[in-house]
Amino acid sequence: MRFDVTILGSSSATPVFNRNPSAQILNANEQLFLIDCGEGTQQQLIRNNIKSQRINTIFISHLHGDHYLGLIGLLSSLHLNGRTKPMSVYGPAELKEILDIQFKYSQTELRYPLHFYATQAKTPEVIFENRDLKVETIILEHRIACTGFKFIQKKALRKVDQTRIVNTAVPVEGIQTMKKGRDFTDAEGRVYRFEEFTSAPPAPRSYAYCSDTLCNWVYIEQIKEVNTLYHEATFMHDLLGRATDTFHTTALQAGQIALKANVGQLLLGHFSARYRELEPLLLEAQSVFPNSKLALEGATFMI
Amino acid sequence: MRFDVTILGSSSATPVFNRNPSAQILNANEQLFLIDCGEGTQQQLIRNNIKSQRINTIFISHLHGDHYLGLIGLLSSLHLNGRTKPMSVYGPAELKEILDIQFKYSQTELRYPLHFYATQAKTPEVIFENRDLKVETIILEHRIACTGFKFIQKKALRKVDQTRIVNTAVPVEGIQTMKKGRDFTDAEGRVYRFEEFTSAPPAPRSYAYCSDTLCNWVYIEQIKEVNTLYHEATFMHDLLGRATDTFHTTALQAGQIALKANVGQLLLGHFSARYRELEPLLLEAQSVFPNSKLALEGATFMI
Repeated sequence: MRFDVTILGSSSATPVFNRNPSAQILNANEQLFLIDCGEGTQQQLIRNNIKSQRINTIFISHLHGDHYLGLIGLLSSLHLNGRTKPMSVYGPAELKEILDIQFKYSQTELRYPLHFYATQAKTPEVIFENRDLKVETIILEHRIACTGFKFIQKKALRKVDQTRIVNTAVPVEGIQTMKKGRDFTDAEGRVYRFEEFTSAPPAPRSYAYCSDTLCNWVYIEQIKEVNTLYHEATFMHDLLGRATDTFHTTALQAGQIALKANVGQLLLGHFSARYRELEPLLLEAQSVFPNSKLALEGATFMI
Repeated sequence: MRFDVTILGSSSATPVFNRNPSAQILNANEQLFLIDCGEGTQQQLIRNNIKSQRINTIFISHLHGDHYLGLIGLLSSLHLNGRTKPMSVYGPAELKEILDIQFKYSQTELRYPLHFYATQAKTPEVIFENRDLKVETIILEHRIACTGFKFIQKKALRKVDQTRIVNTAVPVEGIQTMKKGRDFTDAEGRVYRFEEFTSAPPAPRSYAYCSDTLCNWVYIEQIKEVNTLYHEATFMHDLLGRATDTFHTTALQAGQIALKANVGQLLLGHFSARYRELEPLLLEAQSVFPNSKLALEGATFMI
């Protein structure tokens, strides 16, 4: 099952040449999820050859402009381009008001159903679930209410050994039973052992998206052992005071929390406009957590 | 006096690779005016090396997203980047609500005064005036209330002939009088003829911005004889029906109205995403009004 994330924006609030505000596309088994939607996300989707009509679910972490200002334009364009299938948006309740007032004054009546689900930033909760994936909120600490999102693959079915299945002429219902990890007994009482005909599925993978937050260590329980952690790293550690004042994290702190949470890899993003060169932020995080990477525009990371 | 317009966006509502929604910078005597502010205008300003802090006045034609969605991000960034000097925004009254609700939920208290002036789309009115320039609204006909803007230079003072002034030792107050086109008499009764010491100033120039509108010919009185007319040309004339239905103009109509209004040059913009090549729209307008140009991203036109 495909499970990767493509970065559409790596910058924080103020604009920088050739960087874009937060937005990511998670591809889970060819279903596209948009995580945050800063200004210009539509253009970034075009640039990265991602069809916006394929997105059916959008998650917005909080109501600072660099995380949601591209949403109204994207939703409007999908409408103008003839979308009829539903779109689901998860975000703070007030986002609905912001969307509604703009649709009202532009006299836009969407041709497609827009389902809005309000998140809360007090306790983690599962907000989305389908056959492949479960999404739960991560409670972050920012200047305004803010949640991260944790995407967890569901346990996959066991892999069948096609050759053995065919050679032994296992009945179809037997295959389904054994894929779930149970032995199967046919009408004549013959027992098929699941371990003979199937092998263990790959372990479910998980992705945690943490932006923006004070590095308060409270959410560490939620991100423990994830395969990939995206964590904001707005400042270098020499600006720890500024990071704390503005409820942000330094690159060093991002590395420390990744280490402590024992994650597989760390993706760094949400860089302050003051940094023209991002290598120093990467090196700072790598000094404590070597498998750190810069989450730059256009890059795709396997989770 | 410098008087030119730089195009930041040439596209209409739905996004196209490498085109941006409506936004223009008018430079009048080194004062910068922003006309419309589609999504991504901040990035376009950076790309075109225009310092956004130099903008003190913004005009928004109407509340379709491709004309204003970049405004909240721009105003927020100016705040984050430390602006303290006032900003004036002219646009439909409802725009104030849209801005306020977003500032409220992002808990943004602007560090600079934001003066908002509501426009109305019923009768033309002068909405701005300073030493160099007067701006009046143009009443357009669109699906929602929409105004264009006409920028008219004030009559300049006469040009002084420095050599003659110095040689004759004209008193300072005399120079000021003659620049206004009046003779000056000094304390000893000596008369200085203004025509001897000054020459006629250049004729005041004018720029009309018309987007978006049904080509209803009502506004032609207001754009007559302007030096430069920017007019939307969303469609080719074979789609006249679609243009009329959506309250837009075809490239041919734009040429016709430019011809009838006897303008100096016509700038075409607001192109539908369906047109990858824009040359055919240009040729269509030029077939009736030869001095037509494509108002493409990054181009600057003397008015």
